[in-house]
Amino acid sequence: MKKLINQADDVVSEMIEGFAGAHPEYVEKLKDRFVMVRKQRSKEKVVLVSGGGSGHEPAHVGFIGEGMLDAAVPGSMFTSPTPDQIYEGAKAVSNGKGVLFIVKNYTGDVMNFDMAKELLEMDGIHVETVIVNDDVAVEDSTYTTGRRGIAGTVFVHKIAGAKAEEGAELSEVKEVAEKVIQNVRSMGMAISPCTIPSAGKPNFNLDENEMEIGIGIHGEPGTHREQLKTVDEIVEQLLSKIMGDLQLTSGDEAAVLVNGLGATPLMELYIANRKINEILKEKNIKIAKTFVGEFMTSIDMAGFSISLLKLDQELKALLYRKADTPAFKIG
Amino acid sequence: MKKLINQADDVVSEMIEGFAGAHPEYVEKLKDRFVMVRKQRSKEKVVLVSGGGSGHEPAHVGFIGEGMLDAAVPGSMFTSPTPDQIYEGAKAVSNGKGVLFIVKNYTGDVMNFDMAKELLEMDGIHVETVIVNDDVAVEDSTYTTGRRGIAGTVFVHKIAGAKAEEGAELSEVKEVAEKVIQNVRSMGMAISPCTIPSAGKPNFNLDENEMEIGIGIHGEPGTHREQLKTVDEIVEQLLSKIMGDLQLTSGDEAAVLVNGLGATPLMELYIANRKINEILKEKNIKIAKTFVGEFMTSIDMAGFSISLLKLDQELKALLYRKADTPAFKIG
Repeated sequence: MKKLINQADDVVSEMIEGFAGAHPEYVEKLKDRFVMVRKQRSKEKVVLVSGGGSGHEPAHVGFIGEGMLDAAVPGSMFTSPTPDQIYEGAKAVSNGKGVLFIVKNYTGDVMNFDMAKELLEMDGIHVETVIVNDDVAVEDSTYTTGRRGIAGTVFVHKIAGAKAEEGAELSEVKEVAEKVIQNVRSMGMAISPCTIPSAGKPNFNLDENEMEIGIGIHGEPGTHREQLKTVDEIVEQLLSKIMGDLQLTSGDEAAVLVNGLGATPLMELYIANRKINEILKEKNIKIAKTFVGEFMTSIDMAGFSISLLKLDQELKALLYRKADTPAFKIG
Repeated sequence: MKKLINQADDVVSEMIEGFAGAHPEYVEKLKDRFVMVRKQRSKEKVVLVSGGGSGHEPAHVGFIGEGMLDAAVPGSMFTSPTPDQIYEGAKAVSNGKGVLFIVKNYTGDVMNFDMAKELLEMDGIHVETVIVNDDVAVEDSTYTTGRRGIAGTVFVHKIAGAKAEEGAELSEVKEVAEKVIQNVRSMGMAISPCTIPSAGKPNFNLDENEMEIGIGIHGEPGTHREQLKTVDEIVEQLLSKIMGDLQLTSGDEAAVLVNGLGATPLMELYIANRKINEILKEKNIKIAKTFVGEFMTSIDMAGFSISLLKLDQELKALLYRKADTPAFKIG
C-alpha cells in the first residue's frame, strides 16, 4: 500500500483537521467531535444535515456552506457515523425551524440517522429524513436493502439547500428533496479497486483488462464484470440503464454530473462527457448544466459515475441558485 | 495500461470537445483548432492567454472565465502548443488593450509563445510575456533552462486576471503578474509515475516503497529518490525548501495551494494540509486562503505539490476578487 498518510488509524481525524484548517471561512469542527458545522449561519432556516462513512471526500464535509449543508458527520472509513455524532451535529446547527436529514440508502446510515432523529425529538427538535437511492445498478447490495445512494445525492444537497436558504418550511424542503430523489439516477463503474488504509490491501481484485460495471462507492459488486471497453462503449452502457429507468423523453431537460471516484484523471472524465453530450443530443435531451469532477469518491478507486437529474422549472431554478461551499460553487 | 479512453491518439481532441460541451456558459472552442476562448468577453480589457501541453487538466482550459484567462491553448500530451495555435487564440480574444502571455518555463513553451508574439506583433497587436518559474526543486531540468513552472502558475492567472478585469493597462497587468512570480514558490513529489496514453506504459518506475522528491509535472527527475515516509515528513521536506527560498518571516501572510497530481485522493491532500497549517502556525505565518484540489496535474500520477504565495495588501485584494471559471471560483 502506497499512500500519502501518517498512521492508518489517524487518517479520518487528520483529514478532518486538515479540512477545517483549509476552509475556516466555511466550516468549524466541533470540539472533541468528528462533526463539521457551517461557520456563517443565518438565525432562522431549516437546517440540512448529511453524512456517511469517510473515504468519499469531498462528500459530505465539502458541501457545507451557503445554499447546501449546515452540518456533516463523517464516520470512520466506509463506516456510518454514530447516532451520537449525528445528534451533536444537528443539535449544533438547529435553530427552531427543523432539521432535514439527507441519508444515502445504506443499512447502517439509515439506522443511525434514525436513532439520532429519536434523540433530537426527545429534545423537541423536529426532524424529517429523506433517503437517497439513485444508483440504478442493482436492486439490493452488500450494505443495502433497495438501491444504493451515490453521487446523485449531491443534487439533493444542492436543491434542498437552495430551498432552505429561501426560508421555506421543513415540509417544503423535504418535499423538494423527495422530488429530486424521484428524478435523479446514477450508475458507476471502476477499473481499479480501492484500499482502506487500515486494511493495507485493495478491497477486491480486477484483472489487468477487467472492469466492474455498476460498482458501488465502497467497491460493492455491481451488475457484472467484463473486459475493459472504450469509454464511449462504457458511457453507452451506463446511460442506457440510467435513461431506461429515469424515462427521459425527447424535449426533456436534465443536469449531468460526471463524478470521478478518486484516482481518475479529469481528462478521462471530460472524454466521457463528450460521449454523454453526443447521446443526450441524439435523444433530444437538453442539458441545462454539467458538473465534472470529484464529488463522491471511493478513496483511490479509478472509475467514474454518471448522474442525470431530470429538471422541471422549479428544480432548475433551485439548481442555479447560489451555493458557496468548499467543493461546490454556483451562482 | 488501464485507462478510460477511446483511441490513444484521440485523447486530446476528445477531452477538448468534452470540456467545451461541459462548460458552454464559460468557453467556446475555435472551429477546427485546439483553442479554447472565453465566452463572455467585455469589449475592452487586457486579455490573458496561457497554455501548455495537455495532461495537466484542469490547467489551463479550466481557468478560462471572469477574472482569469481569456484563452488557453492545449498542446498535445506533454507537448507545447504550436505558435499558430497560440496566435489564433490570442487573435480571437484580443480587443485593442494588448495581450499578456502567461508561460510556464519550459524551453518549447517559451519558444513557441515567443514566435506567436512575433506573429501577433506583425498584426499590430501588443503582446507582453511573463515566464513562471515557481518550482524550487531543481535549477535546470529535462525540458528547462532555469526553474520549471508548475502549480504556482494558477496564482499568476488569478491575480493578473483580477487586475485585467479591473481595466488596468497591459504594463500594470504585467507588473502584478511579475510580482506574483517573485512571491510564489512550489515543490512537488510523487509516489507513482504517469502514463501517456500513446506510450502505453509508465514514463518512469518507482519501487514499491520509493518516492521521488521534487518531481516535475511531466515526471522529470526531482532532487532525489528515497524511501516513502509519512506525509508529515514529506510536507516538512517540501515546505523547508519552499520557505528557505521564499524567505517568509514571522508575521508574513501567505496563500496556500495544495495540488493533487491526478490520482491522489482528496483525503490525502487534506491530511497534508493539516501539517502545512501546523508548520506555518509555528513560524507565525498567517494563512489568508487555502486551496486544496487538482489544479495542475500530471495525467494519472499520484503525488502532490505545495505552493506558497507571499501576500501584500495588493496581491491579497486581487486574490480575493471574483473569479468564475470551471475550475477556480472565488468571491
